[in-house]
Amino acid sequence: MSFERLEQQLAFVRELDRLKSVSRRTSLIDRSRRENTAEHSWHLTAMALALAEYAPPGADLPHVVEMLVVHDMVEIDAGDTFAFDASANLDKAARETAAAKRLFGLLPPDLGDRLRACWEEFEANETPSARFANALDRLQGLIVNDAPGDGGTWKLHGVSRGQVLERMAPIETGAPGLWPVVVEAIERAVEAGHIA
Amino acid sequence: MSFERLEQQLAFVRELDRLKSVSRRTSLIDRSRRENTAEHSWHLTAMALALAEYAPPGADLPHVVEMLVVHDMVEIDAGDTFAFDASANLDKAARETAAAKRLFGLLPPDLGDRLRACWEEFEANETPSARFANALDRLQGLIVNDAPGDGGTWKLHGVSRGQVLERMAPIETGAPGLWPVVVEAIERAVEAGHIA
Repeated sequence: MSFERLEQQLAFVRELDRLKSVSRRTSLIDRSRRENTAEHSWHLTAMALALAEYAPPGADLPHVVEMLVVHDMVEIDAGDTFAFDASANLDKAARETAAAKRLFGLLPPDLGDRLRACWEEFEANETPSARFANALDRLQGLIVNDAPGDGGTWKLHGVSRGQVLERMAPIETGAPGLWPVVVEAIERAVEAGHIA
Repeated sequence: MSFERLEQQLAFVRELDRLKSVSRRTSLIDRSRRENTAEHSWHLTAMALALAEYAPPGADLPHVVEMLVVHDMVEIDAGDTFAFDASANLDKAARETAAAKRLFGLLPPDLGDRLRACWEEFEANETPSARFANALDRLQGLIVNDAPGDGGTWKLHGVSRGQVLERMAPIETGAPGLWPVVVEAIERAVEAGHIA
Protein backbone atom coordinates (compact mmCIF):
# COMPACT_ATOMS: atom_id res chain seq x y z
CA MET A 1 0.00 0.00 0.00
CA SER A 2 1.43 3.37 -0.97
CA PHE A 3 0.54 6.50 0.96
CA GLU A 4 -0.14 8.36 -2.29
CA ARG A 5 -2.68 5.73 -3.32
CA LEU A 6 -4.51 6.00 0.01
CA GLU A 7 -4.48 9.80 -0.23
CA GLN A 8 -6.21 9.54 -3.64
CA GLN A 9 -8.81 7.19 -2.21
CA LEU A 10 -9.52 9.48 0.73
CA ALA A 11 -9.75 12.54 -1.54
CA PHE A 12 -12.39 10.65 -3.55
CA VAL A 13 -14.31 9.75 -0.37
CA ARG A 14 -14.30 13.41 0.70
CA GLU A 15 -15.43 14.54 -2.76
CA LEU A 16 -18.38 12.13 -2.63
CA ASP A 17 -19.79 14.10 0.30
CA ARG A 18 -20.96 16.67 -2.25
CA LEU A 19 -23.55 14.26 -3.68
CA LYS A 20 -25.58 14.94 -0.52
CA SER A 21 -26.09 18.51 -1.79
CA VAL A 22 -27.35 17.57 -5.26
CA SER A 23 -31.09 18.20 -5.25
CA ARG A 24 -33.45 16.07 -7.34
CA ARG A 25 -36.87 17.08 -8.64
CA THR A 26 -38.60 14.34 -6.68
CA SER A 27 -39.36 14.98 -3.04
CA LEU A 28 -39.47 12.80 0.04
CA ILE A 29 -42.71 10.84 0.47
CA ASP A 30 -43.74 13.19 3.31
CA ARG A 31 -43.19 16.12 0.89
CA SER A 32 -41.09 17.97 3.51
CA ARG A 33 -38.31 18.72 1.00
CA ARG A 34 -36.70 17.52 -2.21
CA GLU A 35 -34.68 14.35 -2.23
CA ASN A 36 -30.92 14.52 -2.71
CA THR A 37 -28.97 12.13 -4.90
CA ALA A 38 -26.96 10.48 -2.11
CA GLU A 39 -30.00 9.40 -0.10
CA HIS A 40 -31.78 8.44 -3.35
CA SER A 41 -28.86 6.12 -4.14
CA TRP A 42 -29.11 4.52 -0.70
CA HIS A 43 -32.85 4.00 -1.15
CA LEU A 44 -32.16 2.14 -4.40
CA THR A 45 -29.60 -0.19 -2.79
CA ALA A 46 -32.11 -1.00 -0.05
CA MET A 47 -34.76 -1.67 -2.71
CA ALA A 48 -32.38 -4.07 -4.43
CA LEU A 49 -32.15 -6.10 -1.21
CA ALA A 50 -35.90 -6.03 -0.53
CA LEU A 51 -36.94 -6.79 -4.13
CA ALA A 52 -34.06 -9.04 -5.24
CA GLU A 53 -36.38 -11.88 -6.28
CA TYR A 54 -37.81 -9.75 -9.13
CA ALA A 55 -34.43 -9.45 -10.89
CA PRO A 56 -34.32 -10.97 -14.38
CA PRO A 57 -32.40 -14.22 -14.99
CA GLY A 58 -28.64 -13.65 -15.09
CA ALA A 59 -28.63 -10.61 -12.81
CA ASP A 60 -25.95 -10.64 -10.11
CA LEU A 61 -27.33 -8.95 -6.99
CA PRO A 62 -24.03 -7.78 -5.42
CA HIS A 63 -23.12 -6.25 -8.77
CA VAL A 64 -26.56 -4.58 -8.99
CA VAL A 65 -25.99 -3.02 -5.56
CA GLU A 66 -22.48 -1.88 -6.49
CA MET A 67 -23.85 -0.27 -9.68
CA LEU A 68 -26.57 1.51 -7.72
CA VAL A 69 -24.01 2.93 -5.28
CA VAL A 70 -22.06 4.35 -8.24
CA HIS A 71 -24.75 5.16 -10.82
CA ASP A 72 -25.39 8.83 -9.93
CA MET A 73 -21.97 9.92 -8.62
CA VAL A 74 -21.45 11.95 -11.80
CA GLU A 75 -24.23 14.28 -10.62
CA ILE A 76 -21.66 15.87 -8.28
CA ASP A 77 -20.56 17.84 -11.36
CA ALA A 78 -23.42 17.31 -13.81
CA GLY A 79 -26.33 17.87 -11.43
CA ASP A 80 -29.62 15.99 -11.58
CA THR A 81 -31.34 16.07 -14.96
CA PHE A 82 -35.13 15.99 -14.63
CA ALA A 83 -36.44 12.97 -16.50
CA PHE A 84 -39.23 14.94 -18.19
CA ASP A 85 -37.10 17.95 -19.26
CA ALA A 86 -36.37 17.22 -22.94
CA SER A 87 -33.95 20.11 -23.48
CA ALA A 88 -31.86 19.38 -20.38
CA ASN A 89 -31.59 15.78 -21.55
CA LEU A 90 -29.99 16.85 -24.85
CA ASP A 91 -26.56 17.48 -23.34
CA LYS A 92 -26.91 15.13 -20.35
CA ALA A 93 -24.54 12.52 -21.78
CA ALA A 94 -21.82 15.08 -22.53
CA ARG A 95 -22.07 16.67 -19.08
CA GLU A 96 -21.98 13.31 -17.34
CA THR A 97 -19.08 11.97 -19.40
CA ALA A 98 -16.97 14.99 -18.44
CA ALA A 99 -18.01 14.49 -14.81
CA ALA A 100 -17.04 10.80 -14.91
CA LYS A 101 -13.63 11.68 -16.30
CA ARG A 102 -12.88 14.14 -13.50
CA LEU A 103 -14.51 12.25 -10.65
CA PHE A 104 -13.29 8.70 -11.27
CA GLY A 105 -9.96 10.27 -12.28
CA LEU A 106 -9.44 11.22 -8.63
CA LEU A 107 -8.92 7.53 -7.86
CA PRO A 108 -5.92 5.30 -8.63
CA PRO A 109 -6.47 4.12 -12.24
CA ASP A 110 -7.40 0.49 -11.42
CA LEU A 111 -10.15 1.62 -9.03
CA GLY A 112 -11.29 4.55 -11.15
CA ASP A 113 -11.65 2.28 -14.18
CA ARG A 114 -13.63 -0.22 -12.15
CA LEU A 115 -16.16 2.33 -10.85
CA ARG A 116 -16.38 4.03 -14.22
CA ALA A 117 -17.19 0.65 -15.81
CA CYS A 118 -20.04 0.24 -13.28
CA TRP A 119 -21.45 3.63 -14.29
CA GLU A 120 -21.11 2.85 -18.00
CA GLU A 121 -22.80 -0.52 -17.58
CA PHE A 122 -25.70 1.12 -15.77
CA GLU A 123 -26.04 3.77 -18.47
CA ALA A 124 -25.91 1.23 -21.33
CA ASN A 125 -28.73 -0.72 -19.65
CA GLU A 126 -27.93 -3.92 -21.52
CA THR A 127 -26.81 -6.56 -19.01
CA PRO A 128 -29.42 -8.26 -16.77
CA SER A 129 -27.82 -6.59 -13.72
CA ALA A 130 -27.99 -3.13 -15.33
CA ARG A 131 -31.57 -3.72 -16.43
CA PHE A 132 -32.63 -4.57 -12.89
CA ALA A 133 -30.73 -1.56 -11.49
CA ASN A 134 -32.42 0.75 -14.01
CA ALA A 135 -35.82 -0.78 -13.26
CA LEU A 136 -35.36 0.00 -9.55
CA ASP A 137 -34.31 3.57 -10.36
CA ARG A 138 -37.52 4.11 -12.34
CA LEU A 139 -39.67 2.34 -9.74
CA GLN A 140 -38.35 4.55 -6.94
CA GLY A 141 -39.54 7.62 -8.84
CA LEU A 142 -42.96 6.07 -9.22
CA ILE A 143 -43.16 5.15 -5.55
CA VAL A 144 -42.30 8.63 -4.24
CA ASN A 145 -44.69 10.27 -6.71
CA ASP A 146 -47.48 7.81 -6.02
CA ALA A 147 -47.25 7.07 -2.29
CA PRO A 148 -48.87 10.13 -0.70
CA GLY A 149 -51.65 10.25 -3.32
CA ASP A 150 -50.87 13.73 -4.72
CA GLY A 151 -49.09 12.77 -7.96
CA GLY A 152 -45.82 14.46 -6.98
CA THR A 153 -43.77 15.76 -9.92
CA TRP A 154 -46.20 14.20 -12.46
CA LYS A 155 -48.93 16.57 -11.29
CA LEU A 156 -46.57 19.48 -10.67
CA HIS A 157 -45.16 19.42 -14.20
CA GLY A 158 -48.26 18.22 -16.08
CA VAL A 159 -46.60 15.01 -17.21
CA SER A 160 -48.71 12.84 -19.55
CA ARG A 161 -49.62 9.15 -19.35
CA GLY A 162 -47.49 8.48 -22.44
CA GLN A 163 -44.46 10.16 -20.89
CA VAL A 164 -44.79 8.20 -17.67
CA LEU A 165 -45.28 4.90 -19.50
CA GLU A 166 -42.18 5.59 -21.61
CA ARG A 167 -40.20 6.53 -18.50
CA MET A 168 -41.29 3.35 -16.69
CA ALA A 169 -40.86 1.02 -19.70
CA PRO A 170 -37.45 -0.33 -18.54
CA ILE A 171 -39.26 -1.98 -15.62
CA GLU A 172 -41.14 -4.28 -18.01
CA THR A 173 -37.93 -6.05 -19.01
CA GLY A 174 -35.73 -5.17 -15.99
CA ALA A 175 -38.18 -6.43 -13.34
CA PRO A 176 -41.07 -8.09 -15.19
CA GLY A 177 -42.77 -9.26 -11.99
CA LEU A 178 -43.18 -5.65 -10.86
CA TRP A 179 -44.68 -4.39 -14.14
CA PRO A 180 -48.36 -5.10 -13.31
CA VAL A 181 -48.06 -3.03 -10.12
CA VAL A 182 -46.50 -0.17 -12.11
CA VAL A 183 -49.24 -0.17 -14.74
CA GLU A 184 -51.90 -0.28 -12.05
CA ALA A 185 -50.33 2.69 -10.22
CA ILE A 186 -50.16 4.71 -13.44
CA GLU A 187 -53.79 4.00 -14.34
CA ARG A 188 -54.86 4.91 -10.81
CA ALA A 189 -52.93 8.21 -11.06
CA VAL A 190 -54.51 8.97 -14.45
CA GLU A 191 -57.94 8.32 -13.01
CA ALA A 192 -57.20 10.61 -10.04
CA GLY A 193 -56.09 13.37 -12.42
CA HIS A 194 -52.46 13.24 -11.23
CA ILE A 195 -51.19 12.25 -14.68
CA ALA A 196 -52.46 14.25 -17.67
CA MET B 1 -45.05 -14.50 -6.30
CA SER B 2 -48.02 -13.54 -4.19
CA PHE B 3 -49.51 -10.08 -4.33
CA GLU B 4 -49.57 -9.90 -0.53
CA ARG B 5 -45.84 -10.60 -0.41
CA LEU B 6 -45.12 -7.82 -2.91
CA GLU B 7 -47.35 -5.42 -0.99
CA GLN B 8 -45.30 -6.09 2.17
CA GLN B 9 -42.08 -5.46 0.28
CA LEU B 10 -43.37 -2.18 -1.15
CA ALA B 11 -44.64 -1.05 2.26
CA PHE B 12 -41.13 -1.63 3.59
CA VAL B 13 -39.60 0.36 0.71
CA ARG B 14 -41.97 3.27 1.42
CA GLU B 15 -41.20 3.13 5.15
CA LEU B 16 -37.46 3.35 4.43
CA ASP B 17 -37.99 6.82 2.98
CA ARG B 18 -38.20 8.07 6.57
CA LEU B 19 -34.50 7.37 7.16
CA LYS B 20 -33.83 10.47 5.02
CA SER B 21 -35.36 12.56 7.82
CA VAL B 22 -33.24 11.13 10.65
CA SER B 23 -30.67 13.77 11.53
CA ARG B 24 -27.22 12.85 12.78
CA ARG B 25 -24.92 14.98 14.95
CA THR B 26 -22.25 15.09 12.27
CA SER B 27 -22.62 17.61 9.48
CA LEU B 28 -21.72 17.61 5.82
CA ILE B 29 -18.09 18.44 5.08
CA ASP B 30 -19.14 21.89 3.81
CA ARG B 31 -20.92 22.41 7.17
CA SER B 32 -24.12 23.57 5.36
CA ARG B 33 -26.33 21.27 7.45
CA ARG B 34 -26.36 18.07 9.47
CA GLU B 35 -26.05 14.74 7.73
CA ASN B 36 -29.03 12.39 7.62
CA THR B 37 -28.77 8.66 8.16
CA ALA B 38 -29.82 7.61 4.63
CA GLU B 39 -27.11 9.63 2.87
CA HIS B 40 -24.62 8.59 5.57
CA SER B 41 -25.40 4.95 4.75
CA TRP B 42 -24.80 5.59 1.06
CA HIS B 43 -21.48 7.29 1.81
CA LEU B 44 -20.37 4.17 3.72
CA THR B 45 -21.26 1.83 0.84
CA ALA B 46 -19.24 4.01 -1.52
CA MET B 47 -16.33 3.96 0.94
CA ALA B 48 -16.49 0.17 0.99
CA LEU B 49 -15.99 0.15 -2.79
CA ALA B 50 -13.19 2.73 -2.75
CA LEU B 51 -11.34 1.24 0.23
CA ALA B 52 -12.07 -2.48 -0.29
CA GLU B 53 -8.39 -3.44 -0.28
CA TYR B 54 -8.07 -2.46 3.41
CA ALA B 55 -10.60 -5.08 4.55
CA PRO B 56 -9.22 -7.72 6.92
CA PRO B 57 -8.69 -11.30 5.67
CA GLY B 58 -11.97 -13.21 5.41
CA ALA B 59 -14.15 -10.17 4.79
CA ASP B 60 -16.69 -10.57 1.96
CA LEU B 61 -17.11 -7.23 0.21
CA PRO B 62 -20.65 -7.72 -1.17
CA HIS B 63 -21.76 -8.74 2.31
CA VAL B 64 -20.01 -5.69 3.81
CA VAL B 65 -21.95 -3.45 1.42
CA GLU B 66 -25.23 -5.21 2.19
CA MET B 67 -24.61 -4.78 5.91
CA LEU B 68 -23.85 -1.08 5.46
CA VAL B 69 -27.11 -0.58 3.53
CA VAL B 70 -29.01 -2.13 6.45
CA HIS B 71 -26.96 -1.14 9.52
CA ASP B 72 -28.79 2.06 10.49
CA MET B 73 -32.34 1.32 9.28
CA VAL B 74 -33.45 0.92 12.91
CA GLU B 75 -32.86 4.67 13.38
CA ILE B 76 -36.20 5.24 11.63
CA ASP B 77 -37.74 4.49 15.03
CA ALA B 78 -34.79 4.75 17.41
CA GLY B 79 -33.20 7.95 16.05
CA ASP B 80 -29.48 8.59 15.86
CA THR B 81 -27.62 8.15 19.14
CA PHE B 82 -24.67 10.53 19.44
CA ALA B 83 -21.51 8.46 19.93
CA PHE B 84 -20.23 10.65 22.76
CA ASP B 85 -23.52 10.90 24.69
CA ALA B 86 -23.08 8.32 27.48
CA SER B 87 -26.61 8.54 28.88
CA ALA B 88 -28.31 8.21 25.46
CA ASN B 89 -26.19 5.13 24.83
CA LEU B 90 -27.55 3.40 27.97
CA ASP B 91 -30.89 2.46 26.37
CA LYS B 92 -29.69 2.45 22.74
CA ALA B 93 -29.74 -1.34 22.43
CA ALA B 94 -33.29 -1.62 23.80
CA ARG B 95 -34.61 1.15 21.52
CA GLU B 96 -32.94 -0.34 18.47
CA THR B 97 -34.09 -3.88 19.21
CA ALA B 98 -37.71 -2.72 19.39
CA ALA B 99 -37.18 -0.81 16.14
CA ALA B 100 -35.73 -3.85 14.40
CA LYS B 101 -38.70 -5.94 15.45
CA ARG B 102 -41.21 -3.50 13.98
CA LEU B 103 -39.27 -2.50 10.88
CA PHE B 104 -38.01 -5.86 9.65
CA GLY B 105 -41.40 -7.27 10.70
CA LEU B 106 -42.97 -5.31 7.84
CA LEU B 107 -41.29 -7.73 5.41
CA PRO B 108 -42.20 -11.33 4.60
CA PRO B 109 -40.46 -13.42 7.33
CA ASP B 110 -37.70 -14.89 5.11
CA LEU B 111 -36.60 -11.42 3.98
CA GLY B 112 -37.12 -9.75 7.35
CA ASP B 113 -34.98 -12.41 9.04
CA ARG B 114 -32.26 -11.96 6.44
CA LEU B 115 -32.01 -8.17 6.87
CA ARG B 116 -32.31 -8.45 10.63
CA ALA B 117 -29.39 -10.91 10.62
CA CYS B 118 -27.32 -8.33 8.69
CA TRP B 119 -28.09 -5.71 11.32
CA GLU B 120 -27.27 -8.10 14.19
CA GLU B 121 -24.00 -9.13 12.56
CA PHE B 122 -22.99 -5.48 12.18
CA GLU B 123 -23.86 -4.75 15.81
CA ALA B 124 -22.00 -7.80 17.14
CA ASN B 125 -18.87 -6.65 15.27
CA GLU B 126 -17.30 -10.09 15.33
CA THR B 127 -17.00 -11.38 11.75
CA PRO B 128 -14.30 -9.94 9.45
CA SER B 129 -17.06 -8.41 7.25
CA ALA B 130 -18.71 -6.75 10.26
CA ARG B 131 -15.37 -5.48 11.56
CA PHE B 132 -14.61 -3.82 8.22
CA ALA B 133 -18.13 -2.33 8.05
CA ASN B 134 -17.78 -0.93 11.57
CA ALA B 135 -14.31 0.43 10.77
CA LEU B 136 -15.73 2.35 7.79
CA ASP B 137 -18.56 3.72 9.94
CA ARG B 138 -16.05 5.11 12.45
CA LEU B 139 -13.72 6.38 9.72
CA GLN B 140 -16.52 8.32 8.03
CA GLY B 141 -17.14 10.21 11.28
CA LEU B 142 -13.44 11.06 11.49
CA ILE B 143 -13.35 12.23 7.87
CA VAL B 144 -16.31 14.61 8.14
CA ASN B 145 -15.02 16.02 11.45
CA ASP B 146 -11.47 16.36 10.17
CA ALA B 147 -11.82 17.42 6.52
CA PRO B 148 -12.64 21.14 6.78
CA GLY B 149 -10.11 21.69 9.59
CA ASP B 150 -12.55 22.91 12.25
CA GLY B 151 -12.85 19.76 14.38
CA GLY B 152 -16.59 19.34 13.75
CA THR B 153 -18.49 17.67 16.59
CA TRP B 154 -15.24 16.95 18.49
CA LYS B 155 -14.69 20.67 18.99
CA LEU B 156 -18.40 21.46 19.38
CA HIS B 157 -18.89 18.98 22.23
CA GLY B 158 -15.44 19.21 23.83
CA VAL B 159 -14.61 15.57 23.11
CA SER B 160 -11.28 14.35 24.53
CA ARG B 161 -8.41 12.54 22.83
CA GLY B 162 -9.16 9.43 24.91
CA GLN B 163 -12.80 9.42 23.82
CA VAL B 164 -11.91 9.77 20.14
CA LEU B 165 -9.25 7.05 20.34
CA GLU B 166 -11.74 4.71 22.01
CA ARG B 167 -14.37 5.53 19.38
CA MET B 168 -11.92 4.89 16.54
CA ALA B 169 -10.37 1.75 18.06
CA PRO B 170 -12.44 -0.67 15.88
CA ILE B 171 -10.50 0.64 12.86
CA GLU B 172 -7.26 -0.83 14.23
CA THR B 173 -8.57 -4.38 13.79
CA GLY B 174 -11.29 -3.76 11.17
CA ALA B 175 -9.07 -1.94 8.66
CA PRO B 176 -5.50 -2.13 10.01
CA GLY B 177 -4.00 -0.45 6.95
CA LEU B 178 -6.01 2.68 7.66
CA TRP B 179 -5.07 2.95 11.34
CA PRO B 180 -1.87 5.06 10.89
CA VAL B 181 -3.86 7.68 8.99
CA VAL B 182 -6.47 7.74 11.76
CA VAL B 183 -3.89 8.19 14.52
CA GLU B 184 -2.17 10.93 12.54
CA ALA B 185 -5.48 12.79 12.01
CA ILE B 186 -6.29 12.58 15.73
CA GLU B 187 -2.86 13.87 16.79
CA ARG B 188 -3.15 16.71 14.28
CA ALA B 189 -6.59 17.62 15.67
CA VAL B 190 -5.27 17.55 19.25
CA GLU B 191 -2.41 19.85 18.24
CA ALA B 192 -4.86 22.23 16.55
CA GLY B 193 -6.99 22.33 19.69
CA HIS B 194 -9.96 20.60 18.02
CA ILE B 195 -9.80 17.64 20.37
CA ALA B 196 -9.49 18.36 24.11
